[in-house]
Amino acid sequence: MSEQRIIRPTPISGFPEWTPRVRSVELRWLDHIRRGFERYGFSSVETPSVEALDVLMSKGETSQEVYTLHRLQADADDDSDARLGLHFDLTVPFARYVAQHFNDLVFPFKRYQIQRVWRGERPQEGRFREFTQCDIDVINVDRIPVHFDAELPRIVHEVLAGLDLPAWTLHINNRKVLQGFYEGLGVTDPLAVIRAVDKLHKIGADAVRDLLVGQVGLSPDQAAACLELAQIRGDDASVVDEVAKLGVAGETLSSGLDELGGVLDELSDLPPGSVVADLSIARGLDYYTGTVYEAVFDDDPGYGSICAGGRYENLAGQFIRRSLPGVGLSIGLTRIFAKLVAEGRITGGRFCPTDVLVVLPGDERRAAALAVAAQLRERGFNTEVYHQAAKIGKQIQYASKKDIPFVWFPPFEEGRPHEVKNLATGEQVEADPASWNG
Amino acid sequence: MSEQRIIRPTPISGFPEWTPRVRSVELRWLDHIRRGFERYGFSSVETPSVEALDVLMSKGETSQEVYTLHRLQADADDDSDARLGLHFDLTVPFARYVAQHFNDLVFPFKRYQIQRVWRGERPQEGRFREFTQCDIDVINVDRIPVHFDAELPRIVHEVLAGLDLPAWTLHINNRKVLQGFYEGLGVTDPLAVIRAVDKLHKIGADAVRDLLVGQVGLSPDQAAACLELAQIRGDDASVVDEVAKLGVAGETLSSGLDELGGVLDELSDLPPGSVVADLSIARGLDYYTGTVYEAVFDDDPGYGSICAGGRYENLAGQFIRRSLPGVGLSIGLTRIFAKLVAEGRITGGRFCPTDVLVVLPGDERRAAALAVAAQLRERGFNTEVYHQAAKIGKQIQYASKKDIPFVWFPPFEEGRPHEVKNLATGEQVEADPASWNG
Repeated sequence: MSEQRIIRPTPISGFPEWTPRVRSVELRWLDHIRRGFERYGFSSVETPSVEALDVLMSKGETSQEVYTLHRLQADADDDSDARLGLHFDLTVPFARYVAQHFNDLVFPFKRYQIQRVWRGERPQEGRFREFTQCDIDVINVDRIPVHFDAELPRIVHEVLAGLDLPAWTLHINNRKVLQGFYEGLGVTDPLAVIRAVDKLHKIGADAVRDLLVGQVGLSPDQAAACLELAQIRGDDASVVDEVAKLGVAGETLSSGLDELGGVLDELSDLPPGSVVADLSIARGLDYYTGTVYEAVFDDDPGYGSICAGGRYENLAGQFIRRSLPGVGLSIGLTRIFAKLVAEGRITGGRFCPTDVLVVLPGDERRAAALAVAAQLRERGFNTEVYHQAAKIGKQIQYASKKDIPFVWFPPFEEGRPHEVKNLATGEQVEADPASWNG
Repeated sequence: MSEQRIIRPTPISGFPEWTPRVRSVELRWLDHIRRGFERYGFSSVETPSVEALDVLMSKGETSQEVYTLHRLQADADDDSDARLGLHFDLTVPFARYVAQHFNDLVFPFKRYQIQRVWRGERPQEGRFREFTQCDIDVINVDRIPVHFDAELPRIVHEVLAGLDLPAWTLHINNRKVLQGFYEGLGVTDPLAVIRAVDKLHKIGADAVRDLLVGQVGLSPDQAAACLELAQIRGDDASVVDEVAKLGVAGETLSSGLDELGGVLDELSDLPPGSVVADLSIARGLDYYTGTVYEAVFDDDPGYGSICAGGRYENLAGQFIRRSLPGVGLSIGLTRIFAKLVAEGRITGGRFCPTDVLVVLPGDERRAAALAVAAQLRERGFNTEVYHQAAKIGKQIQYASKKDIPFVWFPPFEEGRPHEVKNLATGEQVEADPASWNG
């Protein structure tokens, strides 16, 4: 074997992979998040990893990040896989799913979806090419009450509160406020302003002002008002008054302010600072039409959003002649988890789920060891039998290396008592496999 | 919205997708399988969906099924994604994982891996382009006791016994028996014979004989002996005697027969017929070197294998200068599940995980309804609040359509009792949210 050529495996940039102890923590997180979503009655949905390209690109703007699939040895005339791409988020596939399975669903349809997504980005800190997102969305026919815009941050807050994360804040805004305000100022292309202001955190106020005046064609006064709006922050409905003070009015603006104030009111029982209205955030994606969310770590906002989402009026409507508005919020599991791993904050996982290692005293006792193990498993303990007769010290060392808390000693001969050793305390006592409780 | 072009979504052939009720059953299956693997102490591992092509193709023979990735709008000079392919099984990625993380692992390393895999095959019954496999493997340094070859079928049997499947049988063989027998006959290319005999179930004995004589170059007597071997079946170690009766001898053959007999002996306590030695199966993949497994439904063996695996001496050895033999068994979850769905055997899932729907009597009682819901969730009940004030009948109908078993009525005014309705029985009773037990 050592004569053959060795293909030395190396990590593939942007595609994270964890050792078993780290993976055991990730699995605990995934279970916890799923459990949190199910507590609120959300149904599990999974969609294929691929979508037709015209579905993926129906909103166009993210096309450059899509990975397409090709059969390595496809016949030249075989285009059966042509125009398939890996999904880059779970919102577009979910909108397609709702349209496709419309008659099998009950509305308002509340679903969670925990899956990998792929983006052909250049890897950098916090950016992955394959990562797991945990999404909750609600889609309804015709109209979706704004209460859902409050319920989603409540659920995500409750879920993430159980994961011992560094402090983070959910920033919330409403695209109607932005659009209505810009329209009220007499701006003709509010979407261009939204795209410019969305860069505020990255490029700063002066550069945004230059963009607004130089590129979008605003007057200096209009640009100043846009930047004033973007400075507004607050964790309660008082932000609504602050916007009103800027002296711009209009129907879309006041509708947006009503929604924003309503959501903040409904979330006022969360710990102070959990949710902050931030009139600068817009989310780049064109499909958001109302509430938008973006969460960042307080001590490292530049790392990028760890949760994001918003309300979309027309995403599923691309696929069916029905009005199917929705609102969704996505937890960027891999982005959060990978940062904590990189910073050494995640260390505590066990190498394996085994509770008890049953020692194999000798090959002639294998049947007895297997029987004890079966009995312990039946009683709810994850149990391994050591695979071969070996020195007891070696078997205990195996348990210790694998973080197995208990080592079980079946009797060397029939009729003698069983014993169990607690590796944390070193204590070893007689025990009955029918009644031992760990 | 109705003015825009509609992109009518259609299912993509070979990429299964389930409605929520079916998905809830799949999720229960996945939990059950994972739990079954953890009971035996297997560690969870996930690997990226992609591997470098030279890793995927290190064994060459499956290259035509690989999907490669391409960025939709890659720069012409950007080859950063070149030579990445979606994995077609979980064994090759696991072998690569063990080599790459060798120093972080404890051996024998027992892992389970439940992930999607992709194959660019032409879709047909039972064949998918994206499907989920549930694998258990054990890899050790230098030598891996044959007891693991018996433990894996035991675990899979125990797991699948809990899933109410149609009758199925695990066929087991040993490549050393085949190789040793053919060598004993004086055959110069045993692998060519293995590949021909592997087609027995598909093309029949006469066609295999023609292949063996016409293509592989065996004498008619040699071909007849190969086919005699392939007829042998049995669910206990008596098959070893039957092989011996054919009068061929050799070291590899007798080592293979020892292993096969030993595995059958260790599994003799399973229900009769669960495991059957079948000297005709070989598994196409070149990397198996000893025990091979292949399970099929008894009433539809032509549907293809629902579990498969075997022992490989040298798979991880391609990636590191160590001897790392392994043995693994894979449950073809999607293949099994999709058949049962297609046959209408899977119907029982609930639309959503909600246990209780809290009625919203009126908007002014929203806070009270949310408080009851929070209390019920805290006590372990998955709980939704109806999203808007609406007629009680409409709210109950929503619960009924979503398979929610209980509807909770918070009092219309403070101080009155709560009530709860069991939708299955129609019974409605007073209840205290602090003590109600479903």
